[in-house]
Amino acid sequence: MTYCVGLLLEAGIVLLSDTRTNAGLDNISTYRKMFTFEEPGERVIAILTAGSLSVTQTTMARLHEAAEDAEATPDSSVLLAPTMLKVAEIVGNTLASVRQDIEHKMNATKVSTAASMIVAGQRAGGAMRMFLIYPEGNFIEATTDTPFLQIGEHKYGKPILDRVVSRETSLADAQKAVLLSMDSTLRSNLSVGMPLDLAVIERDACRMSMIRRIEAGDKDFAAMSGAWSRALRDAFSQIEL
Amino acid sequence: MTYCVGLLLEAGIVLLSDTRTNAGLDNISTYRKMFTFEEPGERVIAILTAGSLSVTQTTMARLHEAAEDAEATPDSSVLLAPTMLKVAEIVGNTLASVRQDIEHKMNATKVSTAASMIVAGQRAGGAMRMFLIYPEGNFIEATTDTPFLQIGEHKYGKPILDRVVSRETSLADAQKAVLLSMDSTLRSNLSVGMPLDLAVIERDACRMSMIRRIEAGDKDFAAMSGAWSRALRDAFSQIEL
Repeated sequence: MTYCVGLLLEAGIVLLSDTRTNAGLDNISTYRKMFTFEEPGERVIAILTAGSLSVTQTTMARLHEAAEDAEATPDSSVLLAPTMLKVAEIVGNTLASVRQDIEHKMNATKVSTAASMIVAGQRAGGAMRMFLIYPEGNFIEATTDTPFLQIGEHKYGKPILDRVVSRETSLADAQKAVLLSMDSTLRSNLSVGMPLDLAVIERDACRMSMIRRIEAGDKDFAAMSGAWSRALRDAFSQIEL
Repeated sequence: MTYCVGLLLEAGIVLLSDTRTNAGLDNISTYRKMFTFEEPGERVIAILTAGSLSVTQTTMARLHEAAEDAEATPDSSVLLAPTMLKVAEIVGNTLASVRQDIEHKMNATKVSTAASMIVAGQRAGGAMRMFLIYPEGNFIEATTDTPFLQIGEHKYGKPILDRVVSRETSLADAQKAVLLSMDSTLRSNLSVGMPLDLAVIERDACRMSMIRRIEAGDKDFAAMSGAWSRALRDAFSQIEL
């Protein structure tokens, strides 16, 4: 499994993904689940992936191929698409078509080919937007009322987001919130694992403002995780029944 | 859906269940999901239920009928069973048999007949034990390493339990822990709802030591929920990235 989360805030976009994949319980590997397409200053797009690795990898490969094609068009390339909505459509259509190709081969077995994605970004002159692409290729969009989207093992880390995240949350607080949301998920579900990929896209920058790999032994993350555990236990002991 | 949780501690057993059931999204009702069988001083058994309401209700009805039957035997009645293990077997077998009866009728539609249960209690002279009964009727038991069992929507409320509950947790802290675990679930998932049923069985009491219905407007629960939200937000603001 996987846990990926994206926040769409007044100040920008914050994204976090884990890297654990497993084929069965005894075959666990590390794969990046965060991908970026960028023409700094003109457009920035980040894609987070969850679900069948063969489906997400092939989808990403086709998206890259289409973007690099000499005959790329605004209908085929996420780097040429005139709007973020069109980007979401291209990603959704590619995902659905890859899934159809692969599902055809998988019909005999009962292996799932479901995969979902978060697509977030901004074009110069356009608004920041963030979409959740469903396995069938259709999608929903983050709004003021619902500033965060999650894919994969989303339940463990939802309570903290429900409590602390709003559209007005600062980029610093937002990074803290997604990391603590991930921390709860890591502790409670072995199918989500380090290292993590954390990214920030500031409003109107139209480029990746920050992208950081957080390794398993990362001291800052461990310190934050420890401090959060202590703070939770302190808070727990102070609550009266 | 449902959220039920049971803790098996040195000091006793603490159980909490919600009461929301739904047949589809637009047909929501309140049903008790906590049931007790008791011969005070001799034995106490509590059963929490999740899943198909027709399956769990019929299972509970058959268990009651078998216990009240004039010809009840230690193989058929949870009030006569010689051990808690035998109680778990009777409940598991009854659940599996009800499910088979109903599944037969449901084959045409795709409605799930899955249901699971937590069975906890103690017989005079025996140990406190707690079991999770799977839809197929087999079961697992809580141990020193894993002092809590959950059924239904278990993911939202697991991080807090992972952090604060151990076998040595006091009964007061345990009640706080299950209520906060439920609070996180209530906030993040509409299919789990008030009122709640909270029960405590003290070690070797062999009777329900406390059983309490917590209604939607309960002031103590609302105060605890508010205090926990404030404590979490304070803790969040103090954590350094």
